[in-house]
Amino acid sequence: MFTRKELESFEPYTPGEQPLPGSSVTKLNTNENPYPPSPRVWEAIESIRSNGLLRRYPHYSSIEVREVLSKIHGIGIDCILVTNGSDEALRLAFLALLPTGARVVIPDPTYSYYPVLVEQAMCGASLIKVPLLPNLELDTEALQNSKANLLAIANPNAPTGILLNRDKVLGLVQNFAGVVLVDEAYIDFSPIGSSVAREVTLFPNLLVSRTLSKSYGLAGLRVGYLLGNPSLIQAISKLKDSYNLGMIEQAMTKAALEDQLYLNSCVEKIIFERQELAVKLKKKGFDVTPSAANFLFVKPPKGVSPKVLYEDLKKNNVLVRYFSKGISQDYLRVSVGSSEENETFLGVLDQLLG
Amino acid sequence: MFTRKELESFEPYTPGEQPLPGSSVTKLNTNENPYPPSPRVWEAIESIRSNGLLRRYPHYSSIEVREVLSKIHGIGIDCILVTNGSDEALRLAFLALLPTGARVVIPDPTYSYYPVLVEQAMCGASLIKVPLLPNLELDTEALQNSKANLLAIANPNAPTGILLNRDKVLGLVQNFAGVVLVDEAYIDFSPIGSSVAREVTLFPNLLVSRTLSKSYGLAGLRVGYLLGNPSLIQAISKLKDSYNLGMIEQAMTKAALEDQLYLNSCVEKIIFERQELAVKLKKKGFDVTPSAANFLFVKPPKGVSPKVLYEDLKKNNVLVRYFSKGISQDYLRVSVGSSEENETFLGVLDQLLG
Repeated sequence: MFTRKELESFEPYTPGEQPLPGSSVTKLNTNENPYPPSPRVWEAIESIRSNGLLRRYPHYSSIEVREVLSKIHGIGIDCILVTNGSDEALRLAFLALLPTGARVVIPDPTYSYYPVLVEQAMCGASLIKVPLLPNLELDTEALQNSKANLLAIANPNAPTGILLNRDKVLGLVQNFAGVVLVDEAYIDFSPIGSSVAREVTLFPNLLVSRTLSKSYGLAGLRVGYLLGNPSLIQAISKLKDSYNLGMIEQAMTKAALEDQLYLNSCVEKIIFERQELAVKLKKKGFDVTPSAANFLFVKPPKGVSPKVLYEDLKKNNVLVRYFSKGISQDYLRVSVGSSEENETFLGVLDQLLG
Repeated sequence: MFTRKELESFEPYTPGEQPLPGSSVTKLNTNENPYPPSPRVWEAIESIRSNGLLRRYPHYSSIEVREVLSKIHGIGIDCILVTNGSDEALRLAFLALLPTGARVVIPDPTYSYYPVLVEQAMCGASLIKVPLLPNLELDTEALQNSKANLLAIANPNAPTGILLNRDKVLGLVQNFAGVVLVDEAYIDFSPIGSSVAREVTLFPNLLVSRTLSKSYGLAGLRVGYLLGNPSLIQAISKLKDSYNLGMIEQAMTKAALEDQLYLNSCVEKIIFERQELAVKLKKKGFDVTPSAANFLFVKPPKGVSPKVLYEDLKKNNVLVRYFSKGISQDYLRVSVGSSEENETFLGVLDQLLG
């Protein structure tokens, strides 16, 4: 073979199943939004169509998106890198921050993409996994005391949905010698004031990543962003492709970000449905982890195998997520759907569990 | 600083200037298509809008795009990786193919992104530059005899526009010990039968990259693709982000690829305009390199400095490309625009050269 030897053993990230559009599956497995994005995203691309602009290259650094984000977060545009999904934000950060032989520390379990990114950087970095505490919260002390170049956490964490409060996050940032990357993919579903986005201007070792795939209902668009100290953002930006975001993505993202009223109404509906779903699952004997995200991490009633339940749900056209490793193997992760989707899921559960 | 030391000296690719949409500049500097993409690209996204599908993740490997490409090129879908612009195709190929201390050989001058990619892979690869022959053609013998892991050429070459004929390309592939990456960004503007795309099934060391930014008029969309032997494509694909292409990009790309009639009509118009522009520039005393692309590489009449001419054109709202290094500093690269754009350019030239 012609490729690097490291590639042979490298296993890329496995995304959740995506049934073809039009299939009758109730899809609660990849934490998508049950509601479509703001209708304004479609209005925003009309001028691209009518002016024939797609033949032109887009802005290389998504300047108009950064201007809106600058207002939303109250930070300078030089603190913002807009990316092709938060995947790109995470990949570039890992690549830029990991010299040969570096060490990365993450909680276990967390978003399973982080270990893939460490290996993908192909710099021989080693990964330290710090198990969650028995109550499924982060072991902040152990994370903080690990000697590593990079600490990556998801907040709220995935797949648990548990939020680490803002003060504790900032405590980590202050006490950790390397860079702390806080992946806030689900933060819009958490109590207001949970984010540390604005603090990137205070802490030169803090990076915050965001995505429009969840709260903004734009998983199909592929847009995320990275926030950080200007010098860190500038260094990381060097590694992006020249034009990493298309013109349509830029226009739609700007429109979605500007429609905060629509965002809030979707988020409120999802938080309401999350509470409803949690109550109903508890009634059925599930152990429901307190979630600050748009999904629930639930342990089935005694005697019910999560793996078998996952498979039975799938046979009945309901997709949820099952991870077969570590403590996660005792749980299912269920995205909060629309009221109708959640009822379908609960109805099938009734049939299966009797 | 927290980032890798290699990043400090790393200089990313500098894209050509992009004036804001709506400005009155005649833009002949980045080889965009003077015609918009097929109108079908806009029809193709209607169902995404009406079905609220943007809230869902897209297909992770752009399966429907690959199915169309499979028919167009007469090769299997496992020979195709669809990417976020051909930038991503090139980046992934370089990253996958360059072990620590590898050697890359390229012609000089060629697309100035290749050296950036070598450095960006941060594997300590060394770059061998083989000067063009005095007639500006590739020195195939020197390229072929260089001991390197990867040979990258653009065909037609940029910024010269000169095509290496198919037999010579395949000769390189047969005689080179490593992988040959043929960047066919401009091949649609070359004589039919110039491409080696289909030959990826015959030569395990051949990779071909393509873009929709030029002939398809979709620079704003960010889509390209890489063709190669299935095992090579599979290895390189491991390095892409999970969902590298959005749903809208996939739908628009499929529609554009299916409208080959529209593609051909645009390409024919551009080839016609290229000939007209070449004749008129020769009449003005320019030395015009024979081009098989959608641009001309021209040496101004004796006594006229290309750099000064570039600057004077810019002052008169005409943007062309000037490269200040090597033999390129004696030339300007001018994209072939619409008939009107070319006339504007020629008119300003008349004023400037008297």
